[in-house]
Amino acid sequence: MVVDETEASRICLEKAMAASVVTGLAVIAAVAASLPAHLQVSLAANLGLSAFAFWLTTSVVRSLGDTFLQANLRGIDLNKTTTKRNELGVLVRPVEGVPIPESQGTIAAFVFILVMSVFIPSEFAANGLRRVPPRLPPHACLSEQLAAVLTITFASFMGFADDVLDLRWRHKIPLPFLATLPLLLVYYANGNVTGVMVPGPLRGILGDSLNLGLFFYVFLLLLAVFSTHAINIYAGVNGLEVGQSVVIAVSVLILNILQLHRIPVQYEEYRDQHAQSLFLIIPFLAVSLALLRLNWYPSRVFVGDTYCYFAGMTFAVVCIVGHFSKSMVLFLLPQILNFIYSSPQLFSFMGIPCPRHRMPAYNTKLGHVMNSYAEFKPAELKRCGQAIFWLLRTCWLVHVRPVGTDGRVQMSNLTLINFLLYGLGSCREDVLCLRLLALQVLCSGLCFAVRFGLASYVYDVVL
Amino acid sequence: MVVDETEASRICLEKAMAASVVTGLAVIAAVAASLPAHLQVSLAANLGLSAFAFWLTTSVVRSLGDTFLQANLRGIDLNKTTTKRNELGVLVRPVEGVPIPESQGTIAAFVFILVMSVFIPSEFAANGLRRVPPRLPPHACLSEQLAAVLTITFASFMGFADDVLDLRWRHKIPLPFLATLPLLLVYYANGNVTGVMVPGPLRGILGDSLNLGLFFYVFLLLLAVFSTHAINIYAGVNGLEVGQSVVIAVSVLILNILQLHRIPVQYEEYRDQHAQSLFLIIPFLAVSLALLRLNWYPSRVFVGDTYCYFAGMTFAVVCIVGHFSKSMVLFLLPQILNFIYSSPQLFSFMGIPCPRHRMPAYNTKLGHVMNSYAEFKPAELKRCGQAIFWLLRTCWLVHVRPVGTDGRVQMSNLTLINFLLYGLGSCREDVLCLRLLALQVLCSGLCFAVRFGLASYVYDVVL
Repeated sequence: MVVDETEASRICLEKAMAASVVTGLAVIAAVAASLPAHLQVSLAANLGLSAFAFWLTTSVVRSLGDTFLQANLRGIDLNKTTTKRNELGVLVRPVEGVPIPESQGTIAAFVFILVMSVFIPSEFAANGLRRVPPRLPPHACLSEQLAAVLTITFASFMGFADDVLDLRWRHKIPLPFLATLPLLLVYYANGNVTGVMVPGPLRGILGDSLNLGLFFYVFLLLLAVFSTHAINIYAGVNGLEVGQSVVIAVSVLILNILQLHRIPVQYEEYRDQHAQSLFLIIPFLAVSLALLRLNWYPSRVFVGDTYCYFAGMTFAVVCIVGHFSKSMVLFLLPQILNFIYSSPQLFSFMGIPCPRHRMPAYNTKLGHVMNSYAEFKPAELKRCGQAIFWLLRTCWLVHVRPVGTDGRVQMSNLTLINFLLYGLGSCREDVLCLRLLALQVLCSGLCFAVRFGLASYVYDVVL
Repeated sequence: MVVDETEASRICLEKAMAASVVTGLAVIAAVAASLPAHLQVSLAANLGLSAFAFWLTTSVVRSLGDTFLQANLRGIDLNKTTTKRNELGVLVRPVEGVPIPESQGTIAAFVFILVMSVFIPSEFAANGLRRVPPRLPPHACLSEQLAAVLTITFASFMGFADDVLDLRWRHKIPLPFLATLPLLLVYYANGNVTGVMVPGPLRGILGDSLNLGLFFYVFLLLLAVFSTHAINIYAGVNGLEVGQSVVIAVSVLILNILQLHRIPVQYEEYRDQHAQSLFLIIPFLAVSLALLRLNWYPSRVFVGDTYCYFAGMTFAVVCIVGHFSKSMVLFLLPQILNFIYSSPQLFSFMGIPCPRHRMPAYNTKLGHVMNSYAEFKPAELKRCGQAIFWLLRTCWLVHVRPVGTDGRVQMSNLTLINFLLYGLGSCREDVLCLRLLALQVLCSGLCFAVRFGLASYVYDVVL
């Protein structure tokens, strides 16, 4: 039997996914044995519903493809040999190629909301099994879950509207701010923890813990707005949006499981926080894995802005519910780096031109993706832009090549994707995606090292 | 100054709207004086946010029209002289005419959700002003509001997906079922009132009150599914979808205000239920009035399925939150009659043909809307269809006219709109809409008569 390279890549992915799921389930089962009865019942319900969510997402995405195509929600995969290019390799406009259904993240978000709508009642019922009455009333936990799902639903709705209507940035920025308000209210009502521990060496000056008060809420709001858009601007390679989300979700899952295992029984409140986060991230992971299988190179579906908003807001929500917003900042490190690296092109006041698409270019002969470039005359940049261009060039952070004799240059576009292509060379699209995901895994590893290694030297960590 | 008839109709509407809003505010202010402080503060915040919502909806709908047109969310107003028809008055296919932005209900729903996201925290804060601690914990009221907004958000998301993707009925029916689950859970957790009072004459047999238990929840679920789709199938005339929703919302508002005025102070729980419903219906009314101005004959925008789902689910939610589901059934009487009257065409097993559009036909010369017809041979109908056709014809419930000599007939389509055109004759589109809205007002009047008049004879009504 002859299996071509792309098919081999997909089979490999499916095997890796199956192995990870089995391992994950085994670890969860081992940890669950030591949990109180009400969490065990909720966890069982959550896992069952998540398995159903995986199946439902796969089957609906497969059956609704034509409906999306007819509704004009379709895209062309630009980095494929099927896309029509002229003799110079430049894309023919209007772009020609096989249309692929877009915005399939909508289905994932829908299934997630449905599954959570069924799960919330079952979790509330399981609360009746508690032996010790909780510190907070049962309604507190309920309103937290409701606010979490409300915020995620609204973000997904917004993402779908963006997919369909192509909203402007001035409309898109304020919306997640307002959508996160109910969740922050519940955070406030359920304990209002706005203190951060002060590292040992600074305690003489600042005291044991520093109460940030309102500033902490501002930080959470900004985190919600950032993470809603962060996945969206770190995209452009088959499987990258879903892939990075899966890596972050798995990191959150590991953190939750670790904490549920480590935190002693008497600190019930902390355990409940991580359980709340766990019950949101498992169904999210289920629908994302279902999408990843179909979005992996070569993509049979695209996930659209809906998925990016849905995933980003889910990450903001779980870290607010689970009280691990600082760890989430480390999980999102590649997204933050990408945003900082991109900013000279994103903010027009620096004068560095930003092409409509900054995704990688494609080498038809080799079937490789490679650097894409922006072309400009450095002398014509504004003062600020010139300084940044000098800095980037001197530190070897961009690839620059001269064009013609009039001083024009081509600079590789300022995205993390282009940076990796510049550093490690051109390669096949799925290899590039794997390299980017490896970077994401590295950052998660760094987060765990800081959280459980370094922190114990700087703080007197109990939990 | 010459003002044409259509402009006069619009000016008339705006004057009527302004007068009603002023009267409404005066009545609310009068009733508010006797309310406890926390409700006064919340009411003031709610009214302020609703005024903002009215302004925001108007301005966003006006500015985003082109964005919707570009996204292919557009419709052609079929009953206008601008629409191209052949010499027989039949529409030219593909339909030609001036495209009008569709799905503008999306904007109304978005603004509603945003305003509620800001209102929920302010209501929670106002709860601190209570003098007497409430029977339920403050989280109970919070989770009720969150579940209400979650359910409405999900229904609006679904409506927008239906507008864009044109979903099938087998996908659309089960979704509101699941979306209503969190709200019903909160209903259960907050008191679980599933008893109904038994009318005096039957008390010997059934006792004073009958506990319906699970059946009551099934009734609420069915009501949610019905009302989500009810507005959608009672449409087809400029301004009717929003008009009927405004009439129902005003009826709910009057009921809430009346009850807040009548219920003695010691029954705080009942007052809170009506206050919860009031705080949802005022912003809903604000965004609906903003849409109605632009959707009134001749429509400058269409509201789309999104608005129908949004409005229908809001009605289901307020009656669940405010515990007046039986009154809501009476408010929805025209929708129920329309559904029953339509059913022989909707359910194909009866064999009566159902054209794609059952909206009224248009007389270009007079500028009137008139009956539209379905054509078939009665002898070819199934047994069951023949019986129903005989019944409808004998009771003069449809207009039937023979065509040709082979026994074929044309029967006016089975919608309440066609029934009114058959009963009262053809007329201009806005006059037809006003007649249909008058019917809606009549049904609301009937509901109040039953609720506050008849009921006091049958039950020993205290509240």
